[in-house]
Amino acid sequence: MKITAVDPFYLRIPNITTAADGTQDTLLVRVRTDTGLEGWGECDASPLVSMAVYCCPMSHGNIINIRTSLIGETLDSPNAVLRLSEKVLRNGLDIQQIQHAYSGAEIALWDVIGQKLDKPVYHLLAEMSGTSDVAHPKLPYASVLFGDTPEATYHIASGLREQGYRAAKFGWGPMGKFGEANDIALVRAAREGMGPDAQIMIDAGVVWGTDYETAYNRAEAFAEFSPTWLEEPLAPDAIDAYGALTEKNPSVPIAAGEGSSTYRMAEDLIVNGGIQFVQIDAGRIGGILPSFQVRQLAEQHGIQYVNHTFKSHLSLASSLHVFATNPDFDLLEYPAAGSELSQRLVKNPFQVDPDGMVRVKALPGLGVQVDTEAIRPYLAPVRIEVGADTVFEQTLL
Amino acid sequence: MKITAVDPFYLRIPNITTAADGTQDTLLVRVRTDTGLEGWGECDASPLVSMAVYCCPMSHGNIINIRTSLIGETLDSPNAVLRLSEKVLRNGLDIQQIQHAYSGAEIALWDVIGQKLDKPVYHLLAEMSGTSDVAHPKLPYASVLFGDTPEATYHIASGLREQGYRAAKFGWGPMGKFGEANDIALVRAAREGMGPDAQIMIDAGVVWGTDYETAYNRAEAFAEFSPTWLEEPLAPDAIDAYGALTEKNPSVPIAAGEGSSTYRMAEDLIVNGGIQFVQIDAGRIGGILPSFQVRQLAEQHGIQYVNHTFKSHLSLASSLHVFATNPDFDLLEYPAAGSELSQRLVKNPFQVDPDGMVRVKALPGLGVQVDTEAIRPYLAPVRIEVGADTVFEQTLL
Repeated sequence: MKITAVDPFYLRIPNITTAADGTQDTLLVRVRTDTGLEGWGECDASPLVSMAVYCCPMSHGNIINIRTSLIGETLDSPNAVLRLSEKVLRNGLDIQQIQHAYSGAEIALWDVIGQKLDKPVYHLLAEMSGTSDVAHPKLPYASVLFGDTPEATYHIASGLREQGYRAAKFGWGPMGKFGEANDIALVRAAREGMGPDAQIMIDAGVVWGTDYETAYNRAEAFAEFSPTWLEEPLAPDAIDAYGALTEKNPSVPIAAGEGSSTYRMAEDLIVNGGIQFVQIDAGRIGGILPSFQVRQLAEQHGIQYVNHTFKSHLSLASSLHVFATNPDFDLLEYPAAGSELSQRLVKNPFQVDPDGMVRVKALPGLGVQVDTEAIRPYLAPVRIEVGADTVFEQTLL
Repeated sequence: MKITAVDPFYLRIPNITTAADGTQDTLLVRVRTDTGLEGWGECDASPLVSMAVYCCPMSHGNIINIRTSLIGETLDSPNAVLRLSEKVLRNGLDIQQIQHAYSGAEIALWDVIGQKLDKPVYHLLAEMSGTSDVAHPKLPYASVLFGDTPEATYHIASGLREQGYRAAKFGWGPMGKFGEANDIALVRAAREGMGPDAQIMIDAGVVWGTDYETAYNRAEAFAEFSPTWLEEPLAPDAIDAYGALTEKNPSVPIAAGEGSSTYRMAEDLIVNGGIQFVQIDAGRIGGILPSFQVRQLAEQHGIQYVNHTFKSHLSLASSLHVFATNPDFDLLEYPAAGSELSQRLVKNPFQVDPDGMVRVKALPGLGVQVDTEAIRPYLAPVRIEVGADTVFEQTLL
C-alpha cells in the first residue's frame, strides 16, 4: 500500500496557563493510505514548531520536510517503517526539531502496519527483535503535579489513594523553589496522603540545574519517605552532574530521560549519567522504534525502563507497546489529571483493571480509536504562507 | 535599554536544489531596542521551523516562544545576555528546535551590547572570561563541494589555487557513494589541483553512518595526500562509532561537530568521541556564548577549535569573534562559493588580506553591516495563522 496523506492537527483547550501540564494542547498526526487504512500518532512537543517540520520549504538536501519524505512511499511491513524513518531523519539531518515532529508520524505508521498485518504493535516489535510476545500487566502510577502547599499536596495524594491508586508521582510546582524544609514537607505530605504501602515518586522538574550537591542532599533527606525514585533533579543536558550525583550513590534511585529527543541523549544519560530509571517519551524521541531501542539498552544495563506520558491515551498506547513484553519493567506512568481534551481524545481509554493493573490492548495496531467527533471542537486550524505559497492549509479532521 | 522588537526574516534564492549548499536560503534575526540601537544575527537552520519558535503559542511553562521571553527585557551588559539566554532556554525547555532558532537572536544581542559598550564582541568575551583580548589572524580555507568527478574536482581545486587560497576543504557530493577507488581519486584530484604546499581538508558528509571500519580504511587510504583532517565520516550522533574510530588512531585526524545543536553534543564528541578538531556553528548551537564555551573545552582538552560556517559573512563574523583571541586555533572556514544572496548580505565582507590571512574586525559589536537594500529582493514574507489568531506577520526589512 502507498502513503497518500500525512496530516498534522493542532488541538488545544481555550485557556492555556504556564502550569507544567502537557495536556493543555497536543499535536496529532494522521497517516492515510490508498487502501483506506489510516493510523494516528501523538507528539509531546510544540504543535506549531512541529507542524512546520511537516511543511517547511526545502533549504538544501539536509532540510527536506516530513511530508515530502513520506507521501507516495510504499508501506508494507515493519521493515518499511525502519526504511522510512531512516529517510525522514536523513532528509531532516539539519532540522533540530525532526525527532519531536516525526514521532507522531512514526507512531501512526506502526498503527497502520499493525492494522494491515492484523497484529498489535508489541507483537511486531517482538517478531522484529526475536523476543517474547507475551504482554504483562503494569502498575499504573498517577502522574500529578504537587499542590502549591504541603496541605494541598496531602489532599491530592489522599484523593488518589481513595481512587484506588497504589502508586503516584508528584512533580514540579513548588518543588525546589522554597528551600529544603518546604521540599521535605511536600514529600512528607505525598507519603502521608498516599499511605505507607503505596509507591511514591518525586519529580523535581530539572529545578537544581547542574547543582548535584543539592540534588544529593535532597535525595538523602527524602529517603525516610521511601520514594521509588527522584526524577530529573538536574537539567537534561547536565550529564557530568548526573554522573557526579549517581557516583555518590544517593539513597533514592535517580530517574531521568523524558527530555531525550534522540536515542543518544538517552544512551548518554544511562552510560555516562548513571541513572537507574530511564523515562522515554515515544512522542519526543522519534516514535516507537527508538523507544524500543532504549528499552533494549536498559535491559543490557540492568536498569529499569519507564514510559514518560503526559498526553492522552493515544500516547499511552504507543508507550505501552514499547515495553509491554518485559515483566520486570512493571511501572506505567498513567496520566490521572489531564485536560478534558486529553481525556476525550480516544474512544477506548485504558482502564485500571480490578486487580489495579493496566494491560496493553491485544488489538491490531495501537489498539485505540481516536474520537474525531469529540475532539473537533478543540481543533486550531493552521495556515502558513511563505512568499506567494501556502505551504500549509488545514485538512479536515 | 529595553528590547522592543525581535524580528526574524526568511530570505532565499529563487530555485533551491538538494545540493549540500547552505547558502540557498537563510534566517536573519534583528533585535531592536528603545535606544535605536539594533543588532543582527544569522541562523544555519530551517528558516520556517525556526521562525515558529519565535511565535508559537504557549503550550505550558516549558514551551514559551522566544519573542515572549525577550521583548520588554533590559539589555545593559554581557551578563544580561547570559541571563536572557538562560530565560529563553528555560522557557523553551521542551522545544527541540530552541537552540537552532535562538542562535540568531543571541548573536544579535551580542551585536547590540557591543555597539552600546563600543567594543567588539571578542573584547567582551575576553573580559568576561579573563583571557587575552588580542586578536590573531586566521588562515582562511575555502569551503567548497567536491565536483561530480575527480576531473571536475581538480578544476575546482586549481581554480581556488589561482585565486590564492592556501587551504581548501572539499566535501559531500560524490564522496563515499561510488566506492573506494573513486573516493581516493577525488582526494588525489583535490591535492593535485591545490598543489603540494596547500592544506586540504576532506568532508565526508556523514556518509558512512556508524561504519567506523570503512571510515578508518578511508582515512588510511587518504593519508598519502596529507589532508589536515577527515571531517564527519560518521553520523553526528554515532558517538560510540567515533570513539571506536579514534581509538584506532587513524593517520588522518578526525574532525566533527557542526551538527552540535547543544553544548553537550560537542562535549560528547570531544570527551567520548575522541575527535581532534571540533567544528562549531554559532548559528546552530545557540549562539556565541555556547560556542565560546566549546572553545574553552577544546583548550582544556588540547584539541583544535574551528568554526563551521556555510552561510553569509554575518555568520562568519559571529564565528570569528568566538575564537579570534586564540593564536593556536588558526584555521577559518571561509565560504568561497556561496549564493548571490549570501555574498550580498553584508556591506563590508571579510577580505583576504595581502598576507593571505583574514582578521576579525575591531569594530563595535559584530563589526559587519547587513545590507538591507541588497537583500530585500530575497525576502519571503511569512504569515502564520493558528485558530483565529495571526501569530506571525512579516515586519518590514
